Amino acid sequence: MRTIHVIGIGAGDPEQLTLQAVRALRSTDVFFVLDKGEVKSDLTRLRREMLRTHCPDGGYRVVEARDPERDRGADGASYSPAVGDWRSARADIYARLIAEELGEDGTGAFLVWGDPALYDSTIAILDEVRERGRVPFAYDVVPGISSVSALVARHRIGLNRVARPVQITTGRRLAESFPEGVDDVVVMLDAHQAFQRYADQDFHIYWGAYIGTPDEILEAGPIAEAAPRIERLRAEARERKGWIMDTYLLRRGSGDDRA
Amino acid sequence: MRTIHVIGIGAGDPEQLTLQAVRALRSTDVFFVLDKGEVKSDLTRLRREMLRTHCPDGGYRVVEARDPERDRGADGASYSPAVGDWRSARADIYARLIAEELGEDGTGAFLVWGDPALYDSTIAILDEVRERGRVPFAYDVVPGISSVSALVARHRIGLNRVARPVQITTGRRLAESFPEGVDDVVVMLDAHQAFQRYADQDFHIYWGAYIGTPDEILEAGPIAEAAPRIERLRAEARERKGWIMDTYLLRRGSGDDRA
Ligand SMILES: C[S@@+](CC[C@H](N)C(=O)[O-])C[C@H]1O[C@@H](n2cnc3c(N)ncnc32)[C@H](O)[C@@H]1O
Ligand SMILES: C[S@@+](CC[C@H](N)C(=O)[O-])C[C@H]1O[C@@H](n2cnc3c(N)ncnc32)[C@H](O)[C@@H]1O
Repeated sequence: MRTIHVIGIGAGDPEQLTLQAVRALRSTDVFFVLDKGEVKSDLTRLRREMLRTHCPDGGYRVVEARDPERDRGADGASYSPAVGDWRSARADIYARLIAEELGEDGTGAFLVWGDPALYDSTIAILDEVRERGRVPFAYDVVPGISSVSALVARHRIGLNRVARPVQITTGRRLAESFPEGVDDVVVMLDAHQAFQRYADQDFHIYWGAYIGTPDEILEAGPIAEAAPRIERLRAEARERKGWIMDTYLLRRGSGDDRA
Repeated sequence: MRTIHVIGIGAGDPEQLTLQAVRALRSTDVFFVLDKGEVKSDLTRLRREMLRTHCPDGGYRVVEARDPERDRGADGASYSPAVGDWRSARADIYARLIAEELGEDGTGAFLVWGDPALYDSTIAILDEVRERGRVPFAYDVVPGISSVSALVARHRIGLNRVARPVQITTGRRLAESFPEGVDDVVVMLDAHQAFQRYADQDFHIYWGAYIGTPDEILEAGPIAEAAPRIERLRAEARERKGWIMDTYLLRRGSGDDRA
């Protein structure tokens, strides 16, 4: 039976691999890399270096395939109704890779940024391939340190406050309205700095870009003061590198955990 | 300057330590262990084994101290107003440990279950000690795989659904009402199976106890069918071991990620 590992590799710091992830890397024959035709060559390099470090004897293959185009909408973060089609197109590619590139008893792996459970489609696509039933395989998921965990660790804060809830959401949703019933909100996939909308309210913001990488930038403070700084840092970094990945926590009140 | 590491050690599987955590363990002179006078000797044993595995040359000390009693309220999961007092009492102990047990340039560590950012008070207590200013020290936080990440990895599901939010909350809050504006809710610190209240509604539940340990139990399904099974498994396990740690995700609808 073919086996697939879905391996969370952390959000940028190669030391944030788990021992379980290292073991999974070492047991893999074929790594599947879906190329988004992207400028994020730093990320591709990071993955290659991980393989060199943890599988020094070689003995594995890296198979690259081109990701189908996705209709993302203008903001790059939203998902149009085409998401279902896109997922099917991707499932076609995964099915072909698994069937053609992996021997009957081979082990393949997909390396996923951060934690595979957070805003990532790999698991859902593999489920779709399995449901189709044409290429049987077993698979497991190796959890990873998400950009959310990395963000709050760097700021040395809790995700939640004592006995209170926390919500994780997208920039697109935050732009629509502030989530109900929570005072602590983590925002991912925000191409438009949706936090700006709340800059006149009583929030503390904890922001980070390229967290865990040599380019890491952190910024925090009462939102009215921090928002203009973040806007500037973000624009400069994006200009310099050509892309940006950032995440932030909005905490209503003073930012004091005991509040 | 004294240095303190707050190290997330994962939620039960010793392989879910990160390389960063291993490095931090190895650089530590003194491990501080707050003893809750607890029955959870498996957990204490797990920590000791981690030290034996990753710091085989010894060269470190383990300092144990008794945790102050906390007024927890009857359900063991709620936090009474006494939480502030309790935190101060704990800060007293931490301050004393750091001042008396650690040399001027020594490195100490607190090992935290799962991710230090989730429902854990270590960071807040260290902040309190620092604010008092009597014992200066530097500290950093090493993120860990939380029980939430471990839960969804074992069930091979995403935490969120495409472009949608997810909330993390407590059993106590869920018992009061279902969070607004979200259809995906992770519940921790639930001593009373608050999910039972929603057993006649259209939810899928993904449950896990002792996740990552040899005692791990997983259960999932439409809540009407799964809830009685979970209740039985939970009661049996608790009886057998004397304690239980469980976490679950409630997902409105069929449990299909594409829903
Ligand atoms: C498609 S999601 C994948 C998230 C990933 N699975 C995780 O666990 O972090 C991409 C989003 O994750 C966040 N992100 C990922 N890596 C990051 C990093 N190193 N620094 C800041 N944000 C990051 C950003 O919000 C970005 O828009
Ligand atoms: C005080 S909180 C600490 C959470 C921890 N910092 C984390 O990241 O998982 C304790 C709660 O975490 C959850 N938990 C921790 N370890 C677990 C495990 N191995 N299996 C299931 N639930 C766990 C349970 O909901 C428990 O009530």
